[in-house]
Amino acid sequence: MKDFYPEVGKIRYEGAATDNPLAFRHYNPEALIAGRTMREHLRFAMSYWHTMVAEGSDMFGVGTVSKKYGSSDPMQQARHKALAAFELMDKLDLDYYCFHDRDIAPEADHLAETNKRLDEMASLLAELQKEYGKKVLWGTANLFSHPRYRHGAATACSADVFAFAAAQVKKALELTVQLHGAGYVFWGGREGYETLLNTNMAFELDNLARLMRMAVDYGRSIGFQGDFYVEPKPKEPTKHQYDFDATAVIGFLRQYGLDKDFKLNIEANHATLAGHSFQHELRTARVNGMLGSIDANQGDQLLGWDTDQFPTNVYEATWCMFEVLKDGGFKLGGLNFDAKTRRASSNLADIFHGYIAGMDTFALGLKLADRVIRDGRLDRFIQERYASWQEGIGKRILDGTATISDLEAYVLVKGDVATGSGHQEYLENLINQMMFTG
Amino acid sequence: MKDFYPEVGKIRYEGAATDNPLAFRHYNPEALIAGRTMREHLRFAMSYWHTMVAEGSDMFGVGTVSKKYGSSDPMQQARHKALAAFELMDKLDLDYYCFHDRDIAPEADHLAETNKRLDEMASLLAELQKEYGKKVLWGTANLFSHPRYRHGAATACSADVFAFAAAQVKKALELTVQLHGAGYVFWGGREGYETLLNTNMAFELDNLARLMRMAVDYGRSIGFQGDFYVEPKPKEPTKHQYDFDATAVIGFLRQYGLDKDFKLNIEANHATLAGHSFQHELRTARVNGMLGSIDANQGDQLLGWDTDQFPTNVYEATWCMFEVLKDGGFKLGGLNFDAKTRRASSNLADIFHGYIAGMDTFALGLKLADRVIRDGRLDRFIQERYASWQEGIGKRILDGTATISDLEAYVLVKGDVATGSGHQEYLENLINQMMFTG
Amino acid sequence: MKDFYPEVGKIRYEGAATDNPLAFRHYNPEALIAGRTMREHLRFAMSYWHTMVAEGSDMFGVGTVSKKYGSSDPMQQARHKALAAFELMDKLDLDYYCFHDRDIAPEADHLAETNKRLDEMASLLAELQKEYGKKVLWGTANLFSHPRYRHGAATACSADVFAFAAAQVKKALELTVQLHGAGYVFWGGREGYETLLNTNMAFELDNLARLMRMAVDYGRSIGFQGDFYVEPKPKEPTKHQYDFDATAVIGFLRQYGLDKDFKLNIEANHATLAGHSFQHELRTARVNGMLGSIDANQGDQLLGWDTDQFPTNVYEATWCMFEVLKDGGFKLGGLNFDAKTRRASSNLADIFHGYIAGMDTFALGLKLADRVIRDGRLDRFIQERYASWQEGIGKRILDGTATISDLEAYVLVKGDVATGSGHQEYLENLINQMMFTG
Amino acid sequence: MKDFYPEVGKIRYEGAATDNPLAFRHYNPEALIAGRTMREHLRFAMSYWHTMVAEGSDMFGVGTVSKKYGSSDPMQQARHKALAAFELMDKLDLDYYCFHDRDIAPEADHLAETNKRLDEMASLLAELQKEYGKKVLWGTANLFSHPRYRHGAATACSADVFAFAAAQVKKALELTVQLHGAGYVFWGGREGYETLLNTNMAFELDNLARLMRMAVDYGRSIGFQGDFYVEPKPKEPTKHQYDFDATAVIGFLRQYGLDKDFKLNIEANHATLAGHSFQHELRTARVNGMLGSIDANQGDQLLGWDTDQFPTNVYEATWCMFEVLKDGGFKLGGLNFDAKTRRASSNLADIFHGYIAGMDTFALGLKLADRVIRDGRLDRFIQERYASWQEGIGKRILDGTATISDLEAYVLVKGDVATGSGHQEYLENLINQMMFTG
Repeated sequence: MKDFYPEVGKIRYEGAATDNPLAFRHYNPEALIAGRTMREHLRFAMSYWHTMVAEGSDMFGVGTVSKKYGSSDPMQQARHKALAAFELMDKLDLDYYCFHDRDIAPEADHLAETNKRLDEMASLLAELQKEYGKKVLWGTANLFSHPRYRHGAATACSADVFAFAAAQVKKALELTVQLHGAGYVFWGGREGYETLLNTNMAFELDNLARLMRMAVDYGRSIGFQGDFYVEPKPKEPTKHQYDFDATAVIGFLRQYGLDKDFKLNIEANHATLAGHSFQHELRTARVNGMLGSIDANQGDQLLGWDTDQFPTNVYEATWCMFEVLKDGGFKLGGLNFDAKTRRASSNLADIFHGYIAGMDTFALGLKLADRVIRDGRLDRFIQERYASWQEGIGKRILDGTATISDLEAYVLVKGDVATGSGHQEYLENLINQMMFTG
Repeated sequence: MKDFYPEVGKIRYEGAATDNPLAFRHYNPEALIAGRTMREHLRFAMSYWHTMVAEGSDMFGVGTVSKKYGSSDPMQQARHKALAAFELMDKLDLDYYCFHDRDIAPEADHLAETNKRLDEMASLLAELQKEYGKKVLWGTANLFSHPRYRHGAATACSADVFAFAAAQVKKALELTVQLHGAGYVFWGGREGYETLLNTNMAFELDNLARLMRMAVDYGRSIGFQGDFYVEPKPKEPTKHQYDFDATAVIGFLRQYGLDKDFKLNIEANHATLAGHSFQHELRTARVNGMLGSIDANQGDQLLGWDTDQFPTNVYEATWCMFEVLKDGGFKLGGLNFDAKTRRASSNLADIFHGYIAGMDTFALGLKLADRVIRDGRLDRFIQERYASWQEGIGKRILDGTATISDLEAYVLVKGDVATGSGHQEYLENLINQMMFTG
Repeated sequence: MKDFYPEVGKIRYEGAATDNPLAFRHYNPEALIAGRTMREHLRFAMSYWHTMVAEGSDMFGVGTVSKKYGSSDPMQQARHKALAAFELMDKLDLDYYCFHDRDIAPEADHLAETNKRLDEMASLLAELQKEYGKKVLWGTANLFSHPRYRHGAATACSADVFAFAAAQVKKALELTVQLHGAGYVFWGGREGYETLLNTNMAFELDNLARLMRMAVDYGRSIGFQGDFYVEPKPKEPTKHQYDFDATAVIGFLRQYGLDKDFKLNIEANHATLAGHSFQHELRTARVNGMLGSIDANQGDQLLGWDTDQFPTNVYEATWCMFEVLKDGGFKLGGLNFDAKTRRASSNLADIFHGYIAGMDTFALGLKLADRVIRDGRLDRFIQERYASWQEGIGKRILDGTATISDLEAYVLVKGDVATGSGHQEYLENLINQMMFTG
Repeated sequence: MKDFYPEVGKIRYEGAATDNPLAFRHYNPEALIAGRTMREHLRFAMSYWHTMVAEGSDMFGVGTVSKKYGSSDPMQQARHKALAAFELMDKLDLDYYCFHDRDIAPEADHLAETNKRLDEMASLLAELQKEYGKKVLWGTANLFSHPRYRHGAATACSADVFAFAAAQVKKALELTVQLHGAGYVFWGGREGYETLLNTNMAFELDNLARLMRMAVDYGRSIGFQGDFYVEPKPKEPTKHQYDFDATAVIGFLRQYGLDKDFKLNIEANHATLAGHSFQHELRTARVNGMLGSIDANQGDQLLGWDTDQFPTNVYEATWCMFEVLKDGGFKLGGLNFDAKTRRASSNLADIFHGYIAGMDTFALGLKLADRVIRDGRLDRFIQERYASWQEGIGKRILDGTATISDLEAYVLVKGDVATGSGHQEYLENLINQMMFTG
């Protein structure tokens, strides 16, 4: 088997003090944190599309790095990509990967032929999974790149397009089951509108639910026991996407009775594009019992598009892992690096630097989140802040024995009410204190 | 009775050609559009807070226009404000007004005394309503200005603060009923968080619903038959408000079983702060059957705060009235000008110019929206765009007789699917054509 | 000669009342406005890249409309594009076009071969210009699409890349002179940085000026008498571009002594991405005597990337033409539609609808701007607002005879100073009044 | 003398491991870094307005913390504020303070009386400076809060307002000299426009320079040897401010010949409001030789207004101090905490927590920036990235011996040019490695 990344060897944990740029400083897979190994906590996944397929093009320029892997034949390229993918996962100690149908095999002129290609690749991937001990975190169907989806897929104005999307979802579900994927994602790249001038919003929303319902029914019928996920994103490519943010998706899933089968796949960069912090979206999913999986990346808040950078902000990673730990850790989900090297990072080795940066950032975030939780001061602060609800009028409000007239009577007697400080500055300093000890 | 605006007389409709700046060019109250008078369609309301109370201060400067109305005594000022308000509504032919409890009477040291002041003012307002033939579009309680609400009202960390808020809501509901208000609004100025570091989000969301439920129960018990509204806003004053946008609020109301009593009050400026167009928020409310009332104003999309400008963009007004007309017109809601003159507009007469601009903009918007609907080309375009759902595979998807396997079989036979153009440029030109005829 | 747009005939002015979507309602080329024909005022140009080359791909999807023009050979395609371009300009009555070197001929493996291709195409374009009576508004070099420019062109870290960029500029200047272009544009697509971590900003800024200076010297030496332009854009594709906005560019040009040869090419969508209104950027260029040419398009202020939509907002077009008229009209510049049909507008005919919409919007804007200026109330308002500078202390400040101590003495005597209202609401209403007469 | 902060004692350095929230973990004033003490490097200043005056009001609510300091008389309050200010500076080991004229003494009805109040307070402050060993980092005049400045100060439409502003600047300069201030700041809170409809932009820009020129001339005439600063801010309170960003200000200062006397005062929150990173603005000032002083605070990039939070982001502080160190350290400027406690932080003690958080964040940032510089890898990386300019064609471009034709000839021979990777991911990981060692 060819060595596709000859310049990079196996990446190993060498501790914070190492000078080796191709080593982990914080990701020590078997180290124990809060009763689990780091590996069990973090469940890192490779994104097949960015890592194996995307070549660094942007709206103003063509690719800068070749992902042809030494072949001009599309299917031969696909096979080499698979081999390279497992070499890369092996060298980086990534346990999982995520894929779209079109990442693993190029689309042919006819669906039957396309599906045959997928079958061939699925066999190869299944073999490689066994050989390398790797797993699928989730699969999905690409319902946004082909021109047929220019008006949406489930939310297309054309019934034929809906049908085609359904056929793709069916096959992608079969692949996911065949490859023992733990989850299946809907990311609605074109499920939205470009202009309200030509859009029947109510109809499109119903159809979006319709396809999800079909997917659940079919998936369960063929033995898929994993989680379905919706991945919110507010805009881009469309002007406005229906799965705008976690709150929108949760409301949608409940409205259409899909909330038992679906959870959320939260992406950092999508959160900020929607005007929310990454932690806000995670918290929203968590308090609604719907935190499923995470697309670990990083945007640039001064830019208005999805930059999908490898995550290196330790604050963000810490608050992400804080929410994950508070949620009891991942069940079926994990941390998928939906991240790409910058267009100017034109060496294949840069991909390794990106993953190392991202994995170490989240490993460090895990350690720091655990430190914050074990420290206990933050939790105690919050408990005390809401202490008035444990007794007296607070308790009566919560148990439903105080009417609005009771409350009026209470404050008429009490006079004005006092409340303390939120102590935000103290808390922010406290967190820095735990993060920066050296 | 004193004349508070001696420099301005009664504003009358004089037609588009008039040179008189203090006249309506488009708002002709008794003119018929689509079977109703303009007056019946538009249901214009004065915002008591901006118009009668706010003096033009901002974060970097004190007020520029006095709203003392010739008195130094707060209650005497309140009485004069009421008189001036009705003079202004009379001169501007505004049929409705909206108020917070604290707009109509200043808060005293004790709630009992505050409520006595409210009672006195409510009597005066009731008299004035009768005398001038004016009505309350909606009432509300100010649960955000007083320092006690600095951590929120329903979502405060303190049970005492919740109790105080409930007492205020109770009284504001009583006032609304007494003044025959058609609606009651919750705008959650502080119902959100400043930092997740000190926040129990799940608990706060439950409490937000708790107060709304209390309000509904109490309101209905004292004979309030109007609509309750939530007014979405994403942020400001808080870092993040729970009622972020229409979608968030609709999901929340359904989750807590409040969707039968509540509708939405959509504000233009809040929409754009949330990353949505005004029309998007109106459409979202409409397709969910929850379009209640509208805060007609205008933001500056290059600024990141709520500028609450008088609305003068005829495009925006046209699409707003398009959604209202498509919704069958207002039932209990209306167009409340939650708008203030710019700080540099330091004459009282500027307020009249602002209202005239806003009323004419929406009157023109109404005429243009009606023209677009009567023209029919836009509606027909949309119908044809979705025509494939009327028969064949589309019909089978909608009636539930096509499974995902049927759809796969369908496209395997069909080969690739075709779909047409969205013709956005044609549509945008079509709209301009209807708007600019001269 | 082949008819590339058989479904569209010659577009003609038919007046505001026509129902023909493929007609001008406002653009009446020979109609006189303020002493010039509309054609002379507006100087509309076709953008070669969007119109003849771009196929509707975006970051999440491939093209939706073919611009192969019936050939698989790149140079044959190039020839057909040229023929189609002139057919389109002819049918739309567009007098000018703008191009990058790489738009008119595809890049070959070697620069010598590439330049030979350019020479061939330039001959063909010169012929077509003569045949159709069309002109070049401006030419430019594409220094951003090829991977070699991934770190910038003039601002690249590599001297070789600078040299290659210079060679491209040299050739593009020669082409522009050969085709009698009125202007030459620098748009610094990659002239900025992705991260400060690897960037020597001072050095890169010097180099940017260096290439511009070389271009001016060479251009003048080969007889180019037109204007050089810089087109500001704040970001995208790079994280931060040096030519951020009009103010940044003006300061840069002055700092490096380039302000005699360069003016600005202002684009609407770039303005709003930089946090400025389109009019702000035009005004800034105008008051600095550097308003050269305009990229007429439209962004979506709720989106954070360059959408390059055909302009249909009549307000924006009116204020654009207001600035142009106040500047005495275009000298060498014009209105280039740097605009593309939406990806879902997948018919070639949509391009015609886009241009018609844009041309009519600006023709209407021209008429309305002229109306505002002829009306005179706006100008008189401003004159009166600043009247205090015509005499007394104001005059003394302006003529330099009042020292700061004089001013202190003046106000110590005067006591507090009074100032009036800005009357913004009145003015906004006044403008609507002039825009919407029907 | 009264103890205004009895609950807080002297804050001392206790090292990173301390559990005492009222202690410094990183700010060890006499510790040596790169040849200077931390105290000399950081030159921390108290902002008089936020710390001593502002009471926590926002656009939707009144103050939450009293700054009356036990008196109802305005001048007695002013005296107590001064005493409290020095107590606070003493306890926090802040060496400098910054003030507006109106912070230290309330405005009276007449300017003569106002100035008398200023004189009284200046005497007291001078005494306190001596007693406590504190200094003025910079003074300034508040030209934005009073209604007279609602159309601007130097850029007002009224000459009288300009005159009043000039008188205020004159006095503020005198105070700054009297108190041995190292700098004098212009922050143009209202120097911009609300609407172009009523604005003569060119005239206003000239007047802005006029007042600055007067200030320089007068300042130098009374012995002011410090730096003048302009503090850029893009918007808020006005819709658009002329001093938009560092680049705009530098161009303006050069255009009007003010660049010898003026430098920039860069604020973090203003940078991000303008669409730039804090480091970008600092770098821009630095490479233009105009980095004067810094307003150390922090915004929320998801919010569109100036939140002025105490800075706690260690990344931001590190890059700030990196730019300062690369600039050779502060000369006359320093780090002014233009920061306020959150409105919900309603205890006076929260102010101490805010300053401790901010001071420790910047002390840590200083240590880390020094570590990055001493490490040397970042600098070497950049040197190597631009190595091609040291010889051959690069050298010839820089020394001006290569014409554009030479460059064309060079690449025609060379064929295509190669360029390497930007290695952004490697660099980002490298920085984290230096920041998080534990």
